[in-house]
Amino acid sequence: MKLSRIAEELSGILEGDGDIDILGVSTLEAANNGDISFLTNSKYMSAAKKTAASALIVGEDCPPLGLPFVRHRNPYLAFAKTVEIFHKPAARKPGLHPTAVIADSAVLGKNVSVGAYCIIGEDVRIEDDVEIRERCTVHHHVKIGSGSLLHSGVIIREGVVIGERCVFQNNAVIGSDGFGYARQEDGGWYKIYQAGNVIIEDDVEVGAGSTIDRATLGSTVISRGTKIDNLVQVGHGSVVGSNTLLCAQVGLAGSSRVGNGVILAGQVGVAGHLTIGDGVIATAQTGIANSVEPNKLISGSPSYDHKTWLKSSLINAKLPQMYKSLKELEKQVDAINKTLNVLPEK
Amino acid sequence: MKLSRIAEELSGILEGDGDIDILGVSTLEAANNGDISFLTNSKYMSAAKKTAASALIVGEDCPPLGLPFVRHRNPYLAFAKTVEIFHKPAARKPGLHPTAVIADSAVLGKNVSVGAYCIIGEDVRIEDDVEIRERCTVHHHVKIGSGSLLHSGVIIREGVVIGERCVFQNNAVIGSDGFGYARQEDGGWYKIYQAGNVIIEDDVEVGAGSTIDRATLGSTVISRGTKIDNLVQVGHGSVVGSNTLLCAQVGLAGSSRVGNGVILAGQVGVAGHLTIGDGVIATAQTGIANSVEPNKLISGSPSYDHKTWLKSSLINAKLPQMYKSLKELEKQVDAINKTLNVLPEK
Amino acid sequence: MKLSRIAEELSGILEGDGDIDILGVSTLEAANNGDISFLTNSKYMSAAKKTAASALIVGEDCPPLGLPFVRHRNPYLAFAKTVEIFHKPAARKPGLHPTAVIADSAVLGKNVSVGAYCIIGEDVRIEDDVEIRERCTVHHHVKIGSGSLLHSGVIIREGVVIGERCVFQNNAVIGSDGFGYARQEDGGWYKIYQAGNVIIEDDVEVGAGSTIDRATLGSTVISRGTKIDNLVQVGHGSVVGSNTLLCAQVGLAGSSRVGNGVILAGQVGVAGHLTIGDGVIATAQTGIANSVEPNKLISGSPSYDHKTWLKSSLINAKLPQMYKSLKELEKQVDAINKTLNVLPEK
Repeated sequence: MKLSRIAEELSGILEGDGDIDILGVSTLEAANNGDISFLTNSKYMSAAKKTAASALIVGEDCPPLGLPFVRHRNPYLAFAKTVEIFHKPAARKPGLHPTAVIADSAVLGKNVSVGAYCIIGEDVRIEDDVEIRERCTVHHHVKIGSGSLLHSGVIIREGVVIGERCVFQNNAVIGSDGFGYARQEDGGWYKIYQAGNVIIEDDVEVGAGSTIDRATLGSTVISRGTKIDNLVQVGHGSVVGSNTLLCAQVGLAGSSRVGNGVILAGQVGVAGHLTIGDGVIATAQTGIANSVEPNKLISGSPSYDHKTWLKSSLINAKLPQMYKSLKELEKQVDAINKTLNVLPEK
Repeated sequence: MKLSRIAEELSGILEGDGDIDILGVSTLEAANNGDISFLTNSKYMSAAKKTAASALIVGEDCPPLGLPFVRHRNPYLAFAKTVEIFHKPAARKPGLHPTAVIADSAVLGKNVSVGAYCIIGEDVRIEDDVEIRERCTVHHHVKIGSGSLLHSGVIIREGVVIGERCVFQNNAVIGSDGFGYARQEDGGWYKIYQAGNVIIEDDVEVGAGSTIDRATLGSTVISRGTKIDNLVQVGHGSVVGSNTLLCAQVGLAGSSRVGNGVILAGQVGVAGHLTIGDGVIATAQTGIANSVEPNKLISGSPSYDHKTWLKSSLINAKLPQMYKSLKELEKQVDAINKTLNVLPEK
Repeated sequence: MKLSRIAEELSGILEGDGDIDILGVSTLEAANNGDISFLTNSKYMSAAKKTAASALIVGEDCPPLGLPFVRHRNPYLAFAKTVEIFHKPAARKPGLHPTAVIADSAVLGKNVSVGAYCIIGEDVRIEDDVEIRERCTVHHHVKIGSGSLLHSGVIIREGVVIGERCVFQNNAVIGSDGFGYARQEDGGWYKIYQAGNVIIEDDVEVGAGSTIDRATLGSTVISRGTKIDNLVQVGHGSVVGSNTLLCAQVGLAGSSRVGNGVILAGQVGVAGHLTIGDGVIATAQTGIANSVEPNKLISGSPSYDHKTWLKSSLINAKLPQMYKSLKELEKQVDAINKTLNVLPEK
């Protein structure tokens, strides 16, 4: 495809020869002649200078690099759309595989696809254009909104409600029992029946192997546009806001309240019954033990201000030396006091 | 149901009008008129004062709040039983789904239910009243005690022994190979055949996506009444005591010995070949690198006494200031020493 | 089997009575009369002195313990081979289960076994002696090299390439979509189509429930001989070297570069776009936020030198006391300064 045509499709500004043919899209390092690549972060400038790509998608501030550009206000989004120009997911034919076990009371919309060895339970309602790949289990009374996609192996437990255009990666489990027990006098744990459900709003994605527990009463809620990575645990009764990112292996304990536009990086843990304000960012492995005000950038376990944490982290390695210095100072001050025969006011 | 009747069923003490009709059970915040709710922790007192619930289950010490009470020594347990009054799991009809592949040599008790696309291997023994939901795989030589429940997608590997009334949430894997390799001279890793099994005693629950590895030799053991949350890893040869809680994303390395009545909060990690005494509690993200005496409350990575950790954690954010102060003090003491011409005894 | 015969099979040196009959292999603690056990780490010497085993596999330096030895340069490897003498995995008959759904375009080699309810997609190529156990899904255009084993429930997504003699534990997911989104101006996240794949080289093992994401472009690569434990997350575009160990619950963010012979212990996290040199060892829960030079031993979150970390860790519990001492010293020095009327040079 001509570079000028790509610029047009991306609504970007062409700089340089628009007549060159672009054959593919690639990373800066792996690009060959004929590829378009992208530079969205100036820390990869040196890779950009060495790339074999024939053209680059860049932001508004990028200096000339001797090869044609497609400039865009949001170059990473333009890159995402470029990937789709060159790579199209194989279209699936709608239809129900003969091995799918579908309850008579289930209601399926138009253009629904159900793969081999899927199980669709009683009173399930599946809207138009939903694609359910191989070996999924959709338990009774589930609703799935139009255009949603379940990759193979996904399990949706009874009563879960799923919005439109959601994506579930393989082996995700939605609606497993919450971890709720009452302690008995003999030390044993009495299981609390988990009577609630899970509500997943529109445009949510859930990663492979992630688990979202049903509420004891009421609903665990994942709000519109939120993206959840692999092996994430969402405890029962948690409410996660809109357009939030939960990166891989994040764990939310029960009844967490996570705001809108929050980013919890990999392996972050959130204790139960907390509120995390809108726009909070927690770096990897942060342990959040208390509620967090909106728009804070936090780190550490337990968490505090990220910039302070960065400084404190550098000092961690100096602690043994600090301890030694402190002991030495105490001795010196003691000696001085003895010499002066002065005692400080207490 | 009349409140007086609920009080009776819970063996609680009624305070106030027992004639009111209770239509459901709910949390303090979500309750409507007609609901019963519960107050089991005084930190939710302000929510209790604002609740729209018509009655509350409370402990022995709760002051009057202007609405009828059911008092109980263990109000959380009473709440758990109240949930069951209003929400009953749908009864399953026993029976073997025609698509289940069941080996001829498998022996099934009375009232066993096996769901669609399950696979039951050779010489499996399943006792009475076991319910195996859709798409489970029970490999050869497994025993499952009466009344146990496998949610959809569960995998029980060969030779695993499961007690009575156990519950396995979706996609749990019991008996996968332990992570055992011997290093060869060429740097490669030689797989050690994992010849052992897993023994799960009575009344154990295992969460969605959790993995419990088989022992190299002998057995990995989960003792009676222990509850394991989602995405927990139990390494090969570990022995977990009775009535212990392993919260979400906890990881036990190989040959861990965890006592009775232990609580490991979310994302806790336990190194191999350690012993954790009875009654130990580790807060979220604790990293346990050494054996722990019984009844300790620990935190941190590596772990130490929880109360000290709380204090140390507050000081983490002050480390940069401490470092600066220490350097300043050194300078000052140096200056003083020069002035006094005094050197401390070493 | 005669002990002399075992020594011969292991190419070890017999010390003591080779005529005794060995009936099994066991740990030091669990061994009975007639068992052979092993001592590969001197910290288990006291257990070795008490063992009821009839013989021991030991290293070259082990002092006499009053029972027959098989000495070996690599006693742990010798132990691994001894396990295989006494425990042989049940042989599977090759063959395709009648319930397996296999695309006409799939090409299967000799002696391939495909279990019940497996699904093999279009244009899949499976080499000789591959064993695919129950309920696996192999999506289209996948290649699986000879001698590889998929335990039940494994999912291999489209286009993944797998080498020879690889092992996948239950419910592992290879090739799920990477976690890639571009932020839109409205705060929403635009999914970046994940057009790449995953390449798994020969002799790799992947644990139960682990997830390895496909690259956005190009390949996520796991190199020859690397072993991955349970519930590990490998982010899209990561490249993991050869003979590396990723222990349970490790998480690699996107585009991580992990060297050869690296060991990341349980729950280690690695941030994106980093390079971890050959031979690096990171202890449990380490958080790696920056690239690491080869052969470093690191700990902590964020990580630094392990030995320093050990010392710093001991001081963590003393921080409250240090803080108090520092404040006290400041007061004393202040008093001294007042007395002396000396101010240090600034």
